[in-house]
Amino acid sequence: MAGSTYGTIFKIMTWGESHGKALGVVVDGCPAGLSLCEEDIQVYLDRRKPGQSRLSTPRREDDTVEILSGVFEGRTTGTPISLMIRNTSQRSADYSEIASYYRPGHADYTFDAKYGFRDYRGGGRSSGRETAGRVAAGAIAAKLLKEMGITVTAYTRSIGPIEADMSRFDRDAILSTPTAMPDREASLRAEAFLKETMEELDSSGGVLECIVDGLPAGIGDPVFEKLDANLGKALLSIGAVKAVEIGDGVRVSKAKGSENNDSFCILDGRISKRTNHAGGILGGISDGSPLLLRAHVKPTPSIFKPQNTVNTDKEEISVQIKGRHDPVILPRAVVVMESMVALTLIDALMLNMSARAENLIRFYKKTP
Amino acid sequence: MAGSTYGTIFKIMTWGESHGKALGVVVDGCPAGLSLCEEDIQVYLDRRKPGQSRLSTPRREDDTVEILSGVFEGRTTGTPISLMIRNTSQRSADYSEIASYYRPGHADYTFDAKYGFRDYRGGGRSSGRETAGRVAAGAIAAKLLKEMGITVTAYTRSIGPIEADMSRFDRDAILSTPTAMPDREASLRAEAFLKETMEELDSSGGVLECIVDGLPAGIGDPVFEKLDANLGKALLSIGAVKAVEIGDGVRVSKAKGSENNDSFCILDGRISKRTNHAGGILGGISDGSPLLLRAHVKPTPSIFKPQNTVNTDKEEISVQIKGRHDPVILPRAVVVMESMVALTLIDALMLNMSARAENLIRFYKKTP
Amino acid sequence: MAGSTYGTIFKIMTWGESHGKALGVVVDGCPAGLSLCEEDIQVYLDRRKPGQSRLSTPRREDDTVEILSGVFEGRTTGTPISLMIRNTSQRSADYSEIASYYRPGHADYTFDAKYGFRDYRGGGRSSGRETAGRVAAGAIAAKLLKEMGITVTAYTRSIGPIEADMSRFDRDAILSTPTAMPDREASLRAEAFLKETMEELDSSGGVLECIVDGLPAGIGDPVFEKLDANLGKALLSIGAVKAVEIGDGVRVSKAKGSENNDSFCILDGRISKRTNHAGGILGGISDGSPLLLRAHVKPTPSIFKPQNTVNTDKEEISVQIKGRHDPVILPRAVVVMESMVALTLIDALMLNMSARAENLIRFYKKTP
Amino acid sequence: MAGSTYGTIFKIMTWGESHGKALGVVVDGCPAGLSLCEEDIQVYLDRRKPGQSRLSTPRREDDTVEILSGVFEGRTTGTPISLMIRNTSQRSADYSEIASYYRPGHADYTFDAKYGFRDYRGGGRSSGRETAGRVAAGAIAAKLLKEMGITVTAYTRSIGPIEADMSRFDRDAILSTPTAMPDREASLRAEAFLKETMEELDSSGGVLECIVDGLPAGIGDPVFEKLDANLGKALLSIGAVKAVEIGDGVRVSKAKGSENNDSFCILDGRISKRTNHAGGILGGISDGSPLLLRAHVKPTPSIFKPQNTVNTDKEEISVQIKGRHDPVILPRAVVVMESMVALTLIDALMLNMSARAENLIRFYKKTP
Repeated sequence: MAGSTYGTIFKIMTWGESHGKALGVVVDGCPAGLSLCEEDIQVYLDRRKPGQSRLSTPRREDDTVEILSGVFEGRTTGTPISLMIRNTSQRSADYSEIASYYRPGHADYTFDAKYGFRDYRGGGRSSGRETAGRVAAGAIAAKLLKEMGITVTAYTRSIGPIEADMSRFDRDAILSTPTAMPDREASLRAEAFLKETMEELDSSGGVLECIVDGLPAGIGDPVFEKLDANLGKALLSIGAVKAVEIGDGVRVSKAKGSENNDSFCILDGRISKRTNHAGGILGGISDGSPLLLRAHVKPTPSIFKPQNTVNTDKEEISVQIKGRHDPVILPRAVVVMESMVALTLIDALMLNMSARAENLIRFYKKTP
Repeated sequence: MAGSTYGTIFKIMTWGESHGKALGVVVDGCPAGLSLCEEDIQVYLDRRKPGQSRLSTPRREDDTVEILSGVFEGRTTGTPISLMIRNTSQRSADYSEIASYYRPGHADYTFDAKYGFRDYRGGGRSSGRETAGRVAAGAIAAKLLKEMGITVTAYTRSIGPIEADMSRFDRDAILSTPTAMPDREASLRAEAFLKETMEELDSSGGVLECIVDGLPAGIGDPVFEKLDANLGKALLSIGAVKAVEIGDGVRVSKAKGSENNDSFCILDGRISKRTNHAGGILGGISDGSPLLLRAHVKPTPSIFKPQNTVNTDKEEISVQIKGRHDPVILPRAVVVMESMVALTLIDALMLNMSARAENLIRFYKKTP
Repeated sequence: MAGSTYGTIFKIMTWGESHGKALGVVVDGCPAGLSLCEEDIQVYLDRRKPGQSRLSTPRREDDTVEILSGVFEGRTTGTPISLMIRNTSQRSADYSEIASYYRPGHADYTFDAKYGFRDYRGGGRSSGRETAGRVAAGAIAAKLLKEMGITVTAYTRSIGPIEADMSRFDRDAILSTPTAMPDREASLRAEAFLKETMEELDSSGGVLECIVDGLPAGIGDPVFEKLDANLGKALLSIGAVKAVEIGDGVRVSKAKGSENNDSFCILDGRISKRTNHAGGILGGISDGSPLLLRAHVKPTPSIFKPQNTVNTDKEEISVQIKGRHDPVILPRAVVVMESMVALTLIDALMLNMSARAENLIRFYKKTP
Repeated sequence: MAGSTYGTIFKIMTWGESHGKALGVVVDGCPAGLSLCEEDIQVYLDRRKPGQSRLSTPRREDDTVEILSGVFEGRTTGTPISLMIRNTSQRSADYSEIASYYRPGHADYTFDAKYGFRDYRGGGRSSGRETAGRVAAGAIAAKLLKEMGITVTAYTRSIGPIEADMSRFDRDAILSTPTAMPDREASLRAEAFLKETMEELDSSGGVLECIVDGLPAGIGDPVFEKLDANLGKALLSIGAVKAVEIGDGVRVSKAKGSENNDSFCILDGRISKRTNHAGGILGGISDGSPLLLRAHVKPTPSIFKPQNTVNTDKEEISVQIKGRHDPVILPRAVVVMESMVALTLIDALMLNMSARAENLIRFYKKTP
């Protein structure tokens, strides 16, 4: 199955393994005429690079993107944009041992069950490195959204028991703290917690959050292509995400209708809502309030504590994973979350242009 | 956008509004040769019928399904199966008032924002009645799964603060209690809670849970078409679902790696897992353990308490919703959850048949 | 495989067999706000009805369409439009014999090879009656196109050796002659030819032609989704079509570049072409000239002459087909051709709205 | 619109312009376990290279393919296979003049109409070089087909008035003659004809033909996804193809039913046909006979004769195209035809695996 393809009009296909020659993505369906250069993409990729702080592995991944097609004289041409990132510093020797057994919490066993064998070097296609292609494509989607006045902002909401206090929200902190938290104080406490966790040869989960501002009302579809359904799929497609929430999320199951319903009101002459329990989506369609999304990320499965597992000969064994692994996935996943949200929104916006017959007819009557 | 279409090979298209002439679904891609009759589908539809208990509205919806095509001499032919349910007892008079304002928590405003106007009778296409088509198609998917030894079991896990105790799990209770809980004692308490909620002119949310037994390892795809991503989309496409969890779900964000990783072991000569924090999916691919899914359902937005909102003339008003509305959505949504899970799994299984070259080649070498 | 689904944004799913309870189509993705009533669709269906002249079978098919959903107060709502046509006069007795053997030129054998068995009554899903759903959906697409000033006109260009003389082109003749030829004189000669053919217990092929006026330049895509590629698929999906031509079609293979190239020129201040060998499409994208398409239709395979074939027990036998069969397929296929072209164009137009970044950005900046 | 994506399960995305940095394709959905190396792909690419004979341009395109992902230890892993071909010898200087006007018979004007501007270097994305990605992917599809005993053989059937005599069919001649004709004598005459055509500063069209042997009966779908409809789309998506024929093709429109119907018979105990007017497809589904397809290719639009056209300032001008251009497209398009047919067939075969419920059920019951 063609599982590395995403989107309907703004469609992307990502490719590449952790330890292959290169990784990349092709974007088929980007509108023509968008100003685009490699630097636009590189700033996004740099946010998911490892080795940037004491919380991520000291591996050096250059992740330098090259635009191979689809851009001419600084603008997108409407034809496929091929983006490639050469793998420069992978050392296969680090990983050869894991060929013979199934790491707990990883996709080693399920890949074998599906395909009969696997590229075991660094997790192959199931490595977090797979997200480089998503981020490269997401940078383009985010640039288009920005031109429409739509911004997507993701950050680490919590790590283990340490939660960011949103009353101290500081956008700059997202990019400058090693945790990608928007609260510098919580970030320091989370760092201390992670230091302790590493000393215990363990890892920690956490919560990613994302806010979308500026999305007009009316985007998304009823029934199967609900905007929240597609955003939920987008987030659950990120490795290690085990739960997603829209607006009040899991709290709705304990709420009463009178608490959960958002009253409509008039603000500045426009229909608005006094509260946003719905997270900006009603009946699968955006309501003009900010989107609010959360993703629960499991702890890094590669831990240094000894673990029980089985080998490919179906023997029970004990293993101790080596190498360099982040104690927490979240800081580098923030930009992946932004990318998946941006890709989902741009496609929904493009598909929505023909929702009304009058817009469709007017579009072609005026076009020469 | 074609938002009422679902699936890649086993593809369905649902149609119909709450107060239109009929509702239905066409199933395009069901394999040929499956024994199928109207009764197979009717038993599923009957589970989502209202008026079955004191927790659901006394409206009578006959929901009698008619097979219009695709079945010949008791077996599916491989061509589209068209299923129709006539609307028999809708009275438009009940709903005419809501044409002029936007109900809080409903899709009235977002439909207007998207399409410019809406079929306001009973919520039109955003009504819960839309799910009749999903359930009719889901019955066929579930029948196919059953032939492969795969069972999908959904139930109400909690309503407001009342949670089913899984140590008292009783499969029969799901079909016979008015709450669809698998624990008769919790169900009685939930009924009392709902009675109180109704007296307060309010409604309650709750949690749906679903277990899938018998799914082989190796189903689903890495990257965007992860099995959990598609199941998450399936559940979030059900109106009122605001969060989904796989396995440990939201608990992973507070867990450590050593707690969250499931150790592999050998059971009866086969690779298995000692625990199932992962909910049966690793790296987007099934691992042979049972799937475990949860959906958080918001309280029924139609409550009888007075609420503030705006009308279509952009005036702030106070409204009091009339009519007959369930105090909780969950009991009737249980079979919708089963249906969406079944539809998602059957498609994944069909797509997976060609995952290995050897299977593809052998299939056609042996076929005459 | 979901082979009865067509389109990306304007998506349809057709269903129904020759002798089932009903036939129909669901249109998922029609823009909201289009004025639509059953009569709009009925006029298209009436053009494919049999029994209208001495060239088509005296069977009476009422083909009365019912709109079951998606239209409210005379306008499309943007949600799925379900259209149903009850089968009223099918007599299964006429067809029971063919269950035991494979008719030459029909899909009896290939259905068995694919599905293991078939609904043999009247050809089941491979009957020409399958096109009723296409025409019902095509009527909606054509109505949308007309609002944009785009007209699709198909007609019979030739029957056997008798060809319409385009210098006598008479649009009214298409709807009023039994051959659907635009040349009354050729039509009379074709009728005489068909009378003779029927007396020989034989049937005849012919050529359908279609002209599209008013399509703006710039519609369609390079590479795989070329407008001519999609139109070609649309026409080859009509049963009995064995060749398609765009513009000069098969003549290009004998032409020189200097003959085949159309010179660009300026007409009324706009870029135009002096000739139209290309049939209105260059590089897969419309060039503003009329589209010109041809489909070669094979003779009706049901002929009354004795024929050799095999039965389901793999014995060679001689058969003589009974029943009522048109000596030529074309007159009733004209409106099917128009429908498939209209469906293909409306989808291409909707997809094209986001081809330029400036249009996408402007659309959402102006939308409230 | 994502027009550079092809296929449902075996899905490809091609990218790259004539004068960009590179061209390529990503194959998402290739089954795991197929033995594959760069040489397998290179032999296909070499067949479309220019500069191989006096009929193709002396430009040197190295077209050396690099496998960047999806192959591990010599076998496909089931994850995306990224293939890249660096552009090494393009000189933009040759093409800068054409930025200012629209070449007759080319997509210059239609690209501007769609996208607002274009990459004018060497035709950009509408160049024949775009097909390199198709051929690279087609090589993989063809290798899979070969393992199932299915062979796809395309060749030049005619160039201008010179037609290959099929009674002299010589498979080796296809690869060794400069015309890719299977008849050495006709090839010599075609070469003489093309020499003359070049001296007249002109170009010629021709006919490509393709035979598929070994395809089992039962592949393809009724209604919209007919095998011939998809093959027709595949061929019409090749630039310069203006007509396609299946089996007897255009001849069916002049045929009688008694001539066109193929009688079924028993050969070696299997159901077969005495003739093959149908070209191996009945009702959209393969019938077990060889597939027979033809594509009519227009003359190279780049001719050296002076031509009238308009410039981007909407002035009528006369132009004389320079550079190096083949007098006929066909010899290098033969392998493109094979590739598109192979890609279409492999996808149809994969989709067909679940056509029967018994196969689906048996597949998963036996799989561990």
